[in-house]
Parts: sequence; C-alpha cells; structure tokens
Amino acid sequence: MYKLTKIEGGVCAAEDFYADGVSAGLKSGEAKDMAFIYSESLCEIATTFTTNKMAAAPIRHFKAKGEFQTNFVLINSKNANAMTGKVGIKDIGEILATLPKNIVNPVMSSTGVIGVRLPKEKIIAGAKLFDLKKQDGDAAASAIMTTDTFSKQIAYRVELENGSAFHIGAMAKGAGMINPAMATMLCFITTDADVTKEEMQNILCANVETTFNAASVDGDTSTNDTVMLLSNAKSGAYHKEAFRVALHNIMLFLAREMVRDGEGATKLVTYEVSGAKDDAEAEIVAKALSNSLLVKTALYGEDPNWGRIASTVGASGAFAEEERLSVSFEDVCVYEKGVLHFDAAMEHKASEIMKRDSFTIYCDLGIADGKFTAFGCDLGYEYVKINADYRT
Amino acid sequence: MYKLTKIEGGVCAAEDFYADGVSAGLKSGEAKDMAFIYSESLCEIATTFTTNKMAAAPIRHFKAKGEFQTNFVLINSKNANAMTGKVGIKDIGEILATLPKNIVNPVMSSTGVIGVRLPKEKIIAGAKLFDLKKQDGDAAASAIMTTDTFSKQIAYRVELENGSAFHIGAMAKGAGMINPAMATMLCFITTDADVTKEEMQNILCANVETTFNAASVDGDTSTNDTVMLLSNAKSGAYHKEAFRVALHNIMLFLAREMVRDGEGATKLVTYEVSGAKDDAEAEIVAKALSNSLLVKTALYGEDPNWGRIASTVGASGAFAEEERLSVSFEDVCVYEKGVLHFDAAMEHKASEIMKRDSFTIYCDLGIADGKFTAFGCDLGYEYVKINADYRT
Repeated sequence: MYKLTKIEGGVCAAEDFYADGVSAGLKSGEAKDMAFIYSESLCEIATTFTTNKMAAAPIRHFKAKGEFQTNFVLINSKNANAMTGKVGIKDIGEILATLPKNIVNPVMSSTGVIGVRLPKEKIIAGAKLFDLKKQDGDAAASAIMTTDTFSKQIAYRVELENGSAFHIGAMAKGAGMINPAMATMLCFITTDADVTKEEMQNILCANVETTFNAASVDGDTSTNDTVMLLSNAKSGAYHKEAFRVALHNIMLFLAREMVRDGEGATKLVTYEVSGAKDDAEAEIVAKALSNSLLVKTALYGEDPNWGRIASTVGASGAFAEEERLSVSFEDVCVYEKGVLHFDAAMEHKASEIMKRDSFTIYCDLGIADGKFTAFGCDLGYEYVKINADYRT
Repeated sequence: MYKLTKIEGGVCAAEDFYADGVSAGLKSGEAKDMAFIYSESLCEIATTFTTNKMAAAPIRHFKAKGEFQTNFVLINSKNANAMTGKVGIKDIGEILATLPKNIVNPVMSSTGVIGVRLPKEKIIAGAKLFDLKKQDGDAAASAIMTTDTFSKQIAYRVELENGSAFHIGAMAKGAGMINPAMATMLCFITTDADVTKEEMQNILCANVETTFNAASVDGDTSTNDTVMLLSNAKSGAYHKEAFRVALHNIMLFLAREMVRDGEGATKLVTYEVSGAKDDAEAEIVAKALSNSLLVKTALYGEDPNWGRIASTVGASGAFAEEERLSVSFEDVCVYEKGVLHFDAAMEHKASEIMKRDSFTIYCDLGIADGKFTAFGCDLGYEYVKINADYRT
C-alpha cells in the first residue's frame, strides 16, 4: 500500500532539486524567458521526443550524446532552435560551455518560433543570472511559457508502507501544436525515487500513450516536443506501482491542463470511445473526434450537432455502422443504435451540458470491446487570432 | 487532334439534357433548394461516393439498386438525409414514387444537416414544380448550394478531327467538409459523348485523384460526397483522350472553385510537392500542408511563417531531412537545403506574394522524384463563425 499526497514545489518538490526562471530579454519587458533545473547529484534521464522528422537542434544535440547522466537542464522560450541546421547544434554547445564547472553534461530544451537562430549572447548572459541555490518552481514554470495563459506544475509525495517516501514534481508548457501523434510539448519531471533508468523509461513511455499522446489542441506536431524525467535517487525509496500511478496522475493532470489552455480554447472535452473493434480503432476514433475542425467549432458554438460526431466517426477509417453507434453528451443520449432521440427538449439538455467548462462525449461503436479516451478543446476566434499573427 | 471550347449551359450543355432549380421551402424565403437533371433518353452512370462509413441514405439507396440506367436525378439542399437509418431510405423511395411516369429509375442526392429526417411532403410538393422542358443550369447550380457563396458550373464543347463533336457540362457544390480522403462534395456531370460505362467509370476515378481528392477545406469528410457522371451518348461522337482531358479540366476547375469558396476562405493556395521518396509520400506531404491548422491560419494572417511548413512536412510521416528540404513562396526561395535565405527583404517579398488571392507554395524534399499537387485555403474568423453556428 502507498499514499499519494499533492504537495507544492513543482520541479523542486523532490529532494535536492533546484530551479528558477530569469529574464534574458527574449520575451518583451521583464518577462521570464529562461529556466534551469539543477540537481546536486547526477540524474538518470528518461525521455520521449517528437516524432517530427524536423526535430529541433536541442533534441539532436541530446540524442548525439548517447548514454549519459546529467545534473542540469537549460530551457529557453521564444525561440525553438529548429530548422537551424548544424549551426543550431553548434550554438547549443557554445552556450552550454559557458556554464559553471560543477555542471555535468548539461542539456538544453527550447520552444518558440521555428527557423530563427538562437540569440546566443542573450542566452549566455541570461544563464549567468542563474542562482543554483534557488528553489522557485513557479518562476521556472512561468519562464517556459509561450502562448500559455497560465503556468502548469504539480507534485506528489508518495509514502510507502515501510515508512519511506519519495517525491515526483513536474512542470509543462504547451498551448497550440498539441497533437496525439507524440510527446507534444515541453514537460520536465524530477524525482528522488530510487528507480532504475530502464524502469523509469518504460513507465514514462507507457504513461505518455494515455496522457500527452491522448491530448490534442490543433492536430499539429511540433519540432520540439519533449518529455524529460530526471531521477537523482536521493530518497532511497521506491515502489513500482506507486511510482507508476503517481507519474500517471502527474502526466494526466498536465496533459489536461495543456488542452484546457489550448490556444483560444474555452472548453476541455473528453472523448470516451468504447465498443470499437479493438483499442487501436477506438484510439483512431477518439483522436479523429478531438481533431475534427467541424466538431471543434460546434463545441465552440455550444451547438449539440451530434451529426458531425457521427460523420467524424464514419470518416475516421475505423469500422463503424450507423445501426450500432450510440452518442451521448454526458448522460444525455442523443442517438442510440440507429434511433434518433433528438428533439427540442433533448437539444436543450445537451446545449446546457455544452455550456460547461468541461464535459464528456461518449461514443459507443457497439462492435466489440475496444476503448480509448482522448482529450480535446474547442476552436474559436482566438485560435485564429493567435495563430494568424503568432510571430509579430 | 481535338479542340476544346468553353461554352455556357452547365449541366444542360450536352444534347438533350434538362435541368432547373425550384424553391420548395427548405431554405428560407424564395431561395431555390431543389434541382433536377433530366435526359430524354436513358443514361449510363459513373460515380464515386464518400468513403465515410456513415454514408447517407441517398448513397445507400443508389448502391442497393445494383446496375441500372437512369434519366433523372433529384437533388435537395438543406438536409443531408444522413444518420436517418432505414426510414431515410424509405423516404427516398416514397419521394421518387411520386415522379411522372416518363422518369425511369430516378436517383436522389442530398446535402445539408445530418441527423434530421427529410421534410418529405415539402420535397414531394417541390418536385411537382419541376418543368422537364427547362434548361436552366444556373438555377440548378444555385439550388444545390449550402454554405457556398457562389454557384459552380462549367461546360466544354469538344470538336474532333473528323468533324464530329460532343459536350461535357457540370455543376458542383461544396464549401466546408472538403477533404482529400474522397469524392468530397456534390458534383454532377452530364455528357452526350458516346462513351462506354466502363470507360467513363475508369476515367472518372483516375481524374478524381488529382482533382477533388487533392482539394481540402477543413479535412473533414462528409457522409454525402458524390461525383456522378451521366452519359446519354446522343452526340454519337467520342475520343478517349479528348474526353479524359475535357473531363479533367472540368473536375479540376470545380475542385479549385470549391476550395476558393471554402467556408471563410480568402485565398486559394496550391501546394506543389516534389522530390519525395515516391508519389504516395508526396501526396501525404501535400495533403498534410493543405490540412494543417497552423499553416492555414498563417496563410490567413499573410505571415510567411515557413517554419510551420517545414514542421508540417516533418510531422507528416513522409521521409524528409532538414538538409535536403527547400521551400519557396512562388519564386521566392526562403529555405534551401538547410540554408536559411530568410531576411527582412525576403520576408517582405514573401508577404507580398501571400496577399494574392491565389499563389503556389513549392516544397522540394530533395530525396527522389515523387510529386503531388494539392489545393487548400486559409482558415479565418469566418470559418469559425460559419461552423460554430451552422444549424441555426
């Protein structure tokens, strides 16, 4: 048995982890735009990176290092260092070479505009402002934001039956460009659990499938998406199932927060698909629903246009039949196995549900037992506004 | 040798074809909302239908008839007769049974809202207004519009070397829900060419791939998409290559018109992808670009944010490498095989190109010889407005 308790501190919640955010002049005004995570002792690293073939320089730089431990992650917002070729990787090396001597194998992570070289001098100057004794998870979480409207962090203390305990804390950023196809944004997780590198990599990968990979804002897949888990083993404590569950809670919370903060989004919608031929087909349907422009705009309009849901199920490629499909908005079943339940009273009930900040759409294909849950948001004027003029 | 001449008349341009549009009260006011196409003699039929598993009742009704010839197509807008189950198909039978006796094997086609039964009595009354002697292609093309802002029709006279001639005319509707995955909208084509059913089916299918299936407005795939080609052979004339080319011109024109009239679209953008591993991968890339929300909103903002193009290429799944990719807006190359050409002067030039109503984005993957051309549009506030509240 074990006990999970939500605690403060974000990425500084685990023992001997330090973090802060500073302003290096990448964002306008005094806004924080650079963050670090530092551990006094070396950490094992588990990662999942974007599947985008144009993976950004920091990801290439990381992968080129092979197997290693680190005690430092440098993160900047405003510039993705993507499509910058060999000079992009060279820039990272030059920046990291300026860090203090007690930093070992530092890595970098970037988010922002694609196709512009890093403002190297600003970042080097910014890194000199870092105070490695600071434990300000809030400041770090704010510094990595781009179009995010709020910072995203969470931490758990995990107490085990034998009286020992470990901690997991995390921060994430990501508003647009969140897509089921992969890791999907920046997320940094720190833990003092005494977990092996191999086990934490396996657990991270499994959890990504049902959390970040089940979340979509606009179906686009970024060049920089990264989930990075650092463990310094300082607590000496570990319990596999407790670790798995705590990590899943953290990742699910952050994935949902990212969708809730999707660019211009006003609602977080959960798509619970069941009755598919298998889980893979349920996943196809759930992700098709969460990515459909017609469904997303109907959500924004709070219009219970279930026909678009049925049409999207039909277009997804998964096996489906009109006579077996059922669609519900929360507990209001609007269509059941070929029978239309939709009348003015039901439309009113469904409309009321759609006015909520978050709700669930249930889609039962009535074929077999495949199921999957995806998260999406609506698409409104603000998304267009943010993205029509992102760079200026 | 042969000569193509654009002519007036739309679906009435070919010999002995009749068409008209009437108002049956499905749309508000006096707007035309029902159309027919009639031929004095029976026609061979070639079709491509939606791949959506929730194919609408008119498509199921058509397919259930097996092999047949017809001389009449009844089309209504405002109601898709989709997700209406067996009663939807029964409604079609009852409506068609009320048509005059000289009509043989009539078929129906519908477009509009999903999940609402046809207003059968209104449609039966509307059909009684049809005058089978009318040859008003304009009225028919207007009647089938839904969110279209202009009607779409075109016709060619094809003169052959031996002095004989045939005609092909067409009308189409489709603004939202236009997607590469299939036939994608309603399009009716009539011809008096003396072509066999098998040959016209083959030519139609081949042409669909590079026209309607290369066009995208929002990546959604409708329950009702239909391309239907009717031939009454009245001219006695035929020439395979001339027929293929004329039909291709007609379908390409209508596909581009549909994208140009995409819901809320202000621009028609052509994506010419070359240098892919093979044509199939080029198609994946071209369609990923034409469907990317981030690319579409950048187009709307007239922002030459080529990084989103590169990122979308990378996310498409097709084989691609940063160092081999080149991206151009018309003749302005912004990124060439890993070398960034982008500066203020170039950004200005690219911005000027993006202000045009239509332009081409070239994307050379630099891998092999695969190529494909897709058509897309931008996504602006109007798309959201139209789709957030389509039903009301």
